[in-house]
Amino acid sequence: MIPHAIARRLLPVLTATLLAFPALAQDDPLPSWNDGPTKSAIVDFVDAVTTEGSADYVAAAERIATFDNDGTLWVEQPVYTQLVFAFDRVKALAPDHPEWATTEPFKSVLAGDVAGVVATGHEGVAAIIGATHAGMSTADFETIVTDWLATARHPKFDRAYTTLVYQPMLELLAYLRANEFKTFIVSGGGIEFMRPWTEEVYGIPPEQVVGSSIKTRFEMVDGKPVLMRLAEVDFIDDKDGKPVGINSHIGRRPIAAFGNSAGDTQMLQWTGAGEGRRLMMLVLHDDAEREYAYGPADGLPDSSVGTFPQATMDEAEASGWHIISMKDDWTSVFPPAQ
Amino acid sequence: MIPHAIARRLLPVLTATLLAFPALAQDDPLPSWNDGPTKSAIVDFVDAVTTEGSADYVAAAERIATFDNDGTLWVEQPVYTQLVFAFDRVKALAPDHPEWATTEPFKSVLAGDVAGVVATGHEGVAAIIGATHAGMSTADFETIVTDWLATARHPKFDRAYTTLVYQPMLELLAYLRANEFKTFIVSGGGIEFMRPWTEEVYGIPPEQVVGSSIKTRFEMVDGKPVLMRLAEVDFIDDKDGKPVGINSHIGRRPIAAFGNSAGDTQMLQWTGAGEGRRLMMLVLHDDAEREYAYGPADGLPDSSVGTFPQATMDEAEASGWHIISMKDDWTSVFPPAQ
Repeated sequence: MIPHAIARRLLPVLTATLLAFPALAQDDPLPSWNDGPTKSAIVDFVDAVTTEGSADYVAAAERIATFDNDGTLWVEQPVYTQLVFAFDRVKALAPDHPEWATTEPFKSVLAGDVAGVVATGHEGVAAIIGATHAGMSTADFETIVTDWLATARHPKFDRAYTTLVYQPMLELLAYLRANEFKTFIVSGGGIEFMRPWTEEVYGIPPEQVVGSSIKTRFEMVDGKPVLMRLAEVDFIDDKDGKPVGINSHIGRRPIAAFGNSAGDTQMLQWTGAGEGRRLMMLVLHDDAEREYAYGPADGLPDSSVGTFPQATMDEAEASGWHIISMKDDWTSVFPPAQ
Repeated sequence: MIPHAIARRLLPVLTATLLAFPALAQDDPLPSWNDGPTKSAIVDFVDAVTTEGSADYVAAAERIATFDNDGTLWVEQPVYTQLVFAFDRVKALAPDHPEWATTEPFKSVLAGDVAGVVATGHEGVAAIIGATHAGMSTADFETIVTDWLATARHPKFDRAYTTLVYQPMLELLAYLRANEFKTFIVSGGGIEFMRPWTEEVYGIPPEQVVGSSIKTRFEMVDGKPVLMRLAEVDFIDDKDGKPVGINSHIGRRPIAAFGNSAGDTQMLQWTGAGEGRRLMMLVLHDDAEREYAYGPADGLPDSSVGTFPQATMDEAEASGWHIISMKDDWTSVFPPAQ
């Protein structure tokens, strides 16, 4: 499923990450994390659940760790990457749809009028998803995503989106796997928008990616079976949907969960409700200099993308969830630019 | 998720299997398979895709093998085990539902009148599923399934259902995993009816089980999050649904697939349509003496349970799918009784 083309393109990122890592790994599995309570919470948790004979010991098969993607593993500002992709696809397909010049939500998309798109509401977004994410086979959609990621650049950092992943979280994923954890993505983003690249970038194979989906239909086309993507929502893997998606795809309760917004609340509640030792963490984007600062927890500016309201901060404090401060806990944010 | 109680109960089965296996494994990884074209097809395929430098070599991450469950890994006659479970649950719950004595489909279930139940059609089956599989939390359902499996006995063999698994298929699963395959179940049966025991019995963890499902809803009950099972179909993992389920849960195309009925046709088509070497096999139940004989391929008696019509046999021959003859290819059918 992972074409060699994307492997070739992404390999430098992965190699850089891996090369950066083992040199320090003997002394410190998490070199991009500053010493302090957050890092200690991670290391103490892993030590506890992996030490045989410890009261907190967890068998390897039960070491399930789930990670939100947008804002937890990669950049989500100024808007979710998948939305940028959808807008770019509308522009690419517009020549075949002259009617879009005068019909919403496409008119606003083509004019770069985000407020205009937002004004079209759920119906508008559904129309955009239908026009850009459906009506092709799963194989064709994978190619479209892969080709787009190969050339698209983030407006602030002028780098490929798949390089705007958080170096400390790459180290955390590797550290957990080195301790026989199975790492899963549980994201509100589209499952088939993530799967073409998560194995190369995060080391997370397609079968360990949980996300939102549209329905697919098995069809025979010229005697060959294909799965066609339909303009019909199958599952929204956000908020209440995250424990549902975890149960459907994983079938076990995680013992560790990582998120960054109110949409991750239920995943952390579900994780924390299991018996035995647990680790729940939320990334707080409080680093306007190196990435972004938004919240509005701790007085950070509000954002409808990856919203982290004070209520979520209050729940985190009451529930023993740890806050990862990007500014204070991370020595670096991204892998070195190529 | 796997309670110690079930582990304790199932451990003897697993231990017997493992003890029976390594003694011969050095010479023959598939001791319960007779020498012949079927066994050779398996061994040749595994050799080809695991030999580096071979034109057929497949990287370990892409070595995905999918198995139907009913009739492929365990007994499905005289009726699917999950249906026996549902009927037993109706009987267990009947004292709280006096109205069932006079209302269908429950009246027929309580009278042991299978034809009467069949006459109630899809609506009747939906009512039985609703009454027996929904209205409780996922955790409570797991306990109900585990408790039932601990005491239920198969009418013909007088053994626990989880011991009526096919010894040759247990060896095949282990052989594939020893060659770095990832083994998945892709069954029309209920995903949460299988997950409580597949790890102990087959070595297949919950996250590698794909099946039919009803919807679940995240709820807070007394301040604790639970997933409630709803009387609403979520997904039917049969026929056209199998490639859809594979895509949703695995996100890669299998390179090997094993089934036993017309419901597995699309899974085998989907598997075979990928590039490179593939292995597709169907178990034919042609052994009335040691198990059952039904088809009606090759003139075996017809059955609505695990139907294997001549059309499927014809497609198998035209497509290069291998037929596993229970009678001719297997030296033994089940693990030794405890």
